[in-house]
Amino acid sequence: MRELLLDPGSGALDDRTELLLMLAARAQHLSERIEPALRAGRHVVVDRFSGSTLAYQGHGRGLPLDEVRRACDLATGGRWADLNVLVDVPVVVGSARRHASPDRIEAEAVEFHERVRRGYLVEAATDPAHWFVVSGDAPAAEVASAILQAVGDRLGIAVRSAP
Amino acid sequence: MRELLLDPGSGALDDRTELLLMLAARAQHLSERIEPALRAGRHVVVDRFSGSTLAYQGHGRGLPLDEVRRACDLATGGRWADLNVLVDVPVVVGSARRHASPDRIEAEAVEFHERVRRGYLVEAATDPAHWFVVSGDAPAAEVASAILQAVGDRLGIAVRSAP
Repeated sequence: MRELLLDPGSGALDDRTELLLMLAARAQHLSERIEPALRAGRHVVVDRFSGSTLAYQGHGRGLPLDEVRRACDLATGGRWADLNVLVDVPVVVGSARRHASPDRIEAEAVEFHERVRRGYLVEAATDPAHWFVVSGDAPAAEVASAILQAVGDRLGIAVRSAP
Repeated sequence: MRELLLDPGSGALDDRTELLLMLAARAQHLSERIEPALRAGRHVVVDRFSGSTLAYQGHGRGLPLDEVRRACDLATGGRWADLNVLVDVPVVVGSARRHASPDRIEAEAVEFHERVRRGYLVEAATDPAHWFVVSGDAPAAEVASAILQAVGDRLGIAVRSAP
């Protein structure tokens, strides 16, 4: 599924196809990995979750946000992240930090990535209890330490840096 | 997508993954083939559409029917078939007529296929304006002629057999 979604050779995917494929991959990841870990009482950190789907397929692609939200609910059985950490940088900075061969979505126009960034910031501002926004302009160690502190504070769990 | 869905080697797919993958394939088929044909004023006949998703992923897999219906709406932009033609046979008859190497869904247990069959009949009974049920026990030529007549009658279009 990731290959179909991200391979620049996949050709033109309809926006709804992209959303549904993304959510199919999420449903499978949930049932195979995330739910067993949660049932075992572990905390789970993932690279992207439904918040990113709102930003990319909702704000970025322009699919109606309430439909995207309902589709996320269907894919996840109504599960949303306890906390979304958004490391925010201007689009040009993000592009410059990206690896050399962008995938199908990374290769989109600057305007798309601007809509995604604004979308993330709107989602975070609308639901501050479940989002923590940190500027990615600071040195990596500072960003990491701010995130660790926020995760500990917001979720009331002990978090420490690797030695 | 069809390969992921139907290859018996795909392993255990979560029911929601199966639904979302099926709908991703439908959304792409719609945007690439069906919608251009409809815009060109043509009638479109497809092997399966959202009615089958209700039967297989709703009644068969047991996903909540209202969620399946909403997900179909999302995938198709709210488009449903003008007429569903259900060629109904008992499950044992259907299995006997099937080709030698069943795909992942065909290979399911008899109980699954019984739920799917009952599901189809329930959907047809609930929405008779959009379903036509014909017994597949009759000779093929009779079944074909009944379907041609029903399509013509219900949709008010001229339909004739190939010579």
